[in-house]
Amino acid sequence: MTLDDLLQRHGGWLEASPDEGPVISSRIRFARNLRETTFPGWASKEVRDRVWNETVLAFDGVEHSEDFLRWRMDELNALDRELLFERHLISRELAERQAGNGVFVSSDECRAVMVNEEDHIRLQSLQPGLSLQKAWEAAEELDNGLEQSLSYAFSSKLGYLTACPSNVGTGMRASVMLHLPGLVLTEEINPVINAVSKIGLAVRGLWGEGSEASGNMFQISNQITLGRPEAEIISHLEQIVLEVIEHETNARQRLMDEQELRVHDHVGRAYGVLANAALMTSGEALDLLSALRLGIDLEMLPDMARREIDRLFIQIHPAHLQKAAGATLSPEERDVKRAQLVRQFLEGK
Amino acid sequence: MTLDDLLQRHGGWLEASPDEGPVISSRIRFARNLRETTFPGWASKEVRDRVWNETVLAFDGVEHSEDFLRWRMDELNALDRELLFERHLISRELAERQAGNGVFVSSDECRAVMVNEEDHIRLQSLQPGLSLQKAWEAAEELDNGLEQSLSYAFSSKLGYLTACPSNVGTGMRASVMLHLPGLVLTEEINPVINAVSKIGLAVRGLWGEGSEASGNMFQISNQITLGRPEAEIISHLEQIVLEVIEHETNARQRLMDEQELRVHDHVGRAYGVLANAALMTSGEALDLLSALRLGIDLEMLPDMARREIDRLFIQIHPAHLQKAAGATLSPEERDVKRAQLVRQFLEGK
Repeated sequence: MTLDDLLQRHGGWLEASPDEGPVISSRIRFARNLRETTFPGWASKEVRDRVWNETVLAFDGVEHSEDFLRWRMDELNALDRELLFERHLISRELAERQAGNGVFVSSDECRAVMVNEEDHIRLQSLQPGLSLQKAWEAAEELDNGLEQSLSYAFSSKLGYLTACPSNVGTGMRASVMLHLPGLVLTEEINPVINAVSKIGLAVRGLWGEGSEASGNMFQISNQITLGRPEAEIISHLEQIVLEVIEHETNARQRLMDEQELRVHDHVGRAYGVLANAALMTSGEALDLLSALRLGIDLEMLPDMARREIDRLFIQIHPAHLQKAAGATLSPEERDVKRAQLVRQFLEGK
Repeated sequence: MTLDDLLQRHGGWLEASPDEGPVISSRIRFARNLRETTFPGWASKEVRDRVWNETVLAFDGVEHSEDFLRWRMDELNALDRELLFERHLISRELAERQAGNGVFVSSDECRAVMVNEEDHIRLQSLQPGLSLQKAWEAAEELDNGLEQSLSYAFSSKLGYLTACPSNVGTGMRASVMLHLPGLVLTEEINPVINAVSKIGLAVRGLWGEGSEASGNMFQISNQITLGRPEAEIISHLEQIVLEVIEHETNARQRLMDEQELRVHDHVGRAYGVLANAALMTSGEALDLLSALRLGIDLEMLPDMARREIDRLFIQIHPAHLQKAAGATLSPEERDVKRAQLVRQFLEGK
């Protein structure tokens, strides 16, 4: 399987979406580093290349290693790197294409290992819906497999050692991606974000740290990695996410009870613009698709499935559009292709 | 025929629209006052009533007087008065319902005479398209008919005497209603308005003096009524209007040459929102219908006729919606009905 094959499919974490209300996906990420090896940010080219090669060898010992694709960033052109970023498989930092940078991706895209990002190893496990436990188990399995060959930097006092102190300890970040249009429409989102932040969790946008909440998508994740076992961190996050889901559900119910027409208007207008525009930016597309997703949840759009919208959420991004077109496109050309893509999808309904 | 019958129809000046590009209609208005009679603003109830009664008698001498309907404002409820205003048959001032206020309207709505507005007599003649000459002839005919019985205040030096000095002389205001979305989209409208203003013409919005240019509709009219014969005023206005039409036509051509996609986007989005919104204000409806009208002119919407849009331009107004619903409606209820009206129209296409 190649990168182009990947484009024909949809990440397993989307494809298998169990239609669990506001939750899109759950993610577990481990930060790991090799013992007595300079962290990537300070390492020479030789050291970074060695880390890559050791990881390649270690993968041979991993169960179902044949399911993993791997690319070094310097083998990929800018478009392909952007494509992996848009699919949430690599970070912007990894895409910067320094020596030894690379990624392993399971063919269902549910697991990925970035090499020589901020840490030597950044392992992620994605699952559809609210499945932190399952994501954690899948991450653990892969982590254990790699650890059979790799010798991790670990302190019995601190736990896993990482390039940034904020990851020391478990090296784990657990996060849940939520679609919260109800809280945004009722203008209750900021109090909820503030409350969640106060109890030590971070709320971020669609693309993680520093990104805005495009399409009413919010990631909630743990901030603390030190002094608490993984299971406790995950269970705490899950408990808070369930509370946020309840707030979102209540907000939607209140909207339908008190402002049903306004919601119909919001969803109808989004549909009308998506079905008729000739030019559309990514930001607008995300916002309008968010309204459609809400309309599906509220059973206003019986002919559409939520997972179809979730796929469009990925496909409308610049690299995906260019890859699908087989050409480099200017921003305006992308706006045309993006408008065509959503129009064609809706015409097929 | 009653006021309710009127609602079932469309003003002759719209119905007969000759699809003349950016021109909606041409209007001639005469201001006349009765000799040795206090102007309405200063007149007693008795004087105002006498003016009304004299006009009623004078109408008997007018050709085809049986074609005219007449209402005193105090016979009409607020909704009906608003309806006449929305159909451009009376002014806001007349609707204020003071003693003797009233209007005569020809059944095709092409001619109307307001009594006891700012002047004793305000006679208007409307024609579809650019037909100032025809409108003038129709106004003249009616004016001459009335003058057989009414004795107008006229000075051989100044001409017709009017309540406001700005109307003294011919007492005539000639105006043309233009739809200028091309100049608005290319942001050339302000230079054009400034140029037109500098040569002594006024540019106003859809509802005349002090109103904004909703739906990209602009009225161009003469300011000067003194010292120039009617024919010269009309011919000067017509010449300037032809120049504005040329500017508008050029702006549209340039838009299609240089930004065709943007125009398709503009028209498509308007269509999408009109066809799918659940709530819509008058202002938004006018702006979106303006985009559809442009789309029709540019042959992007082959199934629609411009005159259908021109009718909606009237029907989406508050009194029309309430009259059609047979009930008084709150602003939100009107927004619902308005959205329904345009949706149903587009669904029938």
